[in-house]
Amino acid sequence: WAAGGGVMHACGHDLHMAGLAAVGRAARTLELPVPLLALLQPREEGVDSGARDVVEEGGLRGVDAVVAAHVQPQLPAGVVAVTPGPVNASIDEFVVTVRGQGGHSGYPHTVTDSVLALSNVVVALQQLGARRVDPVVGIACMVNQLRAGTANNVVPDTATGSGTVRTMREDDRQRAHHAIRDIARHIAIAHGCTADVEIVPGEPPLVIDDHLATRALVLLEEMGHLVTADFRSFGSDDFATYGSHARTLMAFVGTGAEAGGLHDATFLPDDSYVGLVADALVAGYCAAVE
Amino acid sequence: WAAGGGVMHACGHDLHMAGLAAVGRAARTLELPVPLLALLQPREEGVDSGARDVVEEGGLRGVDAVVAAHVQPQLPAGVVAVTPGPVNASIDEFVVTVRGQGGHSGYPHTVTDSVLALSNVVVALQQLGARRVDPVVGIACMVNQLRAGTANNVVPDTATGSGTVRTMREDDRQRAHHAIRDIARHIAIAHGCTADVEIVPGEPPLVIDDHLATRALVLLEEMGHLVTADFRSFGSDDFATYGSHARTLMAFVGTGAEAGGLHDATFLPDDSYVGLVADALVAGYCAAVE
Repeated sequence: WAAGGGVMHACGHDLHMAGLAAVGRAARTLELPVPLLALLQPREEGVDSGARDVVEEGGLRGVDAVVAAHVQPQLPAGVVAVTPGPVNASIDEFVVTVRGQGGHSGYPHTVTDSVLALSNVVVALQQLGARRVDPVVGIACMVNQLRAGTANNVVPDTATGSGTVRTMREDDRQRAHHAIRDIARHIAIAHGCTADVEIVPGEPPLVIDDHLATRALVLLEEMGHLVTADFRSFGSDDFATYGSHARTLMAFVGTGAEAGGLHDATFLPDDSYVGLVADALVAGYCAAVE
Repeated sequence: WAAGGGVMHACGHDLHMAGLAAVGRAARTLELPVPLLALLQPREEGVDSGARDVVEEGGLRGVDAVVAAHVQPQLPAGVVAVTPGPVNASIDEFVVTVRGQGGHSGYPHTVTDSVLALSNVVVALQQLGARRVDPVVGIACMVNQLRAGTANNVVPDTATGSGTVRTMREDDRQRAHHAIRDIARHIAIAHGCTADVEIVPGEPPLVIDDHLATRALVLLEEMGHLVTADFRSFGSDDFATYGSHARTLMAFVGTGAEAGGLHDATFLPDDSYVGLVADALVAGYCAAVE
């Protein structure tokens, strides 16, 4: 099933395709109670993501439920996770630009230091996880890029930090956007500077339909598989986009860590996982039909 | 006196040269009690500074005192400052490299975040001014460059901050170096990271000889000039290098702010300052002879 040419995205996508092909072939031999549509999507991890294209081109017209299975090395080999509620996070990028009045590093009293202000902003943004969001769900807010200055002895006018904020719920997401702006701007002002905050929305949270999850879990158990309803991650997936248009189910198929992590060049799980992915998709279909 | 061709360093150096030439011409008509040597130095603000060349080439052999005058727009026009003790700061550059374990911004619990650690280091370095150095003398420690990361959603392995530390006394300087290393390393460890600190020594503090300052002040007063013994700045000057080999005096000749700041393209004080610079040099010579 693995793609030829030695080239891979290493996220298990060709394995997912193989599982879907298996389900499609089996379905052709059956009289299905409701139609089954195989959804092949471009740019699953691109910007803008391919899921938006699928929706905008009418790919979900008349569709009641969208079901997916994704391999997951964090789960033990053979365990399928079908968790109700949020299972993947929203992801939004933000850029904080702090502006001060730079100058001579020998005259600190004549400058307002954008670097010191930005550093305090980075530290203050940790309030999001510590005080702004219910910890039973949590949040991940990280500044992953810093840029400031061109000389060691010149205080720069501006300092920039950018990163990502991930939340599991839409209201936390809005709360986080507000808090990032509020914290950055006021911490900057407290240091005599100003801060502009730009937030670029990415994928929404991936929220699994309660009925689909609980029914699929029972069906997978009945098939004899090991199951859990307790796996979530702050990874993000554009599959979440479908959640605004249909009930969604994403099952995570455990491969164990031995096969390497996602996006790792060594990630090549055994052929047997094709069947497990197919079973997860079938369980989702059956849950949606009930 | 201004250099031709429209090109200038804009620090008043050609004005200083003109004042020195005036003193030299006047000296040739006199019977001086002790020899006077005109010191013309290359690379006053280069790295390594020209003052080191002058010392290493034996330019100060047999010299008891080195006297300079420097224009200073921060002082009112016509006021000459001759302050005993430290008048300019040492300057040393430092680079703090924080190393963590980067990774996926959706799995914050699996990384040790070099950006967060570095931001805390920048904030913690403010302890130098707040707690580590006697505020009657003070210190200036500023991180002026930040570099970290290449993507908004990837936690970087390393984050780098660099800047300058300026002190007025050698023992504060050594204390500051120790504190920068100590603070950066331990704050980094507190965040699960490590920090390497590199410190590149620059110019020493510029310390004016008490006798030269107090005598020159009286002599300038007697010449009818406005004087002060209360001007210091955390600027740095490689003239300080001579302080390890001879008594030093640097007088600051006020030009007022109207003429633009040092290194400003509009900085072109009036011809009359040539005479004032010459008088300051003469006062320094006379003070050294006494």
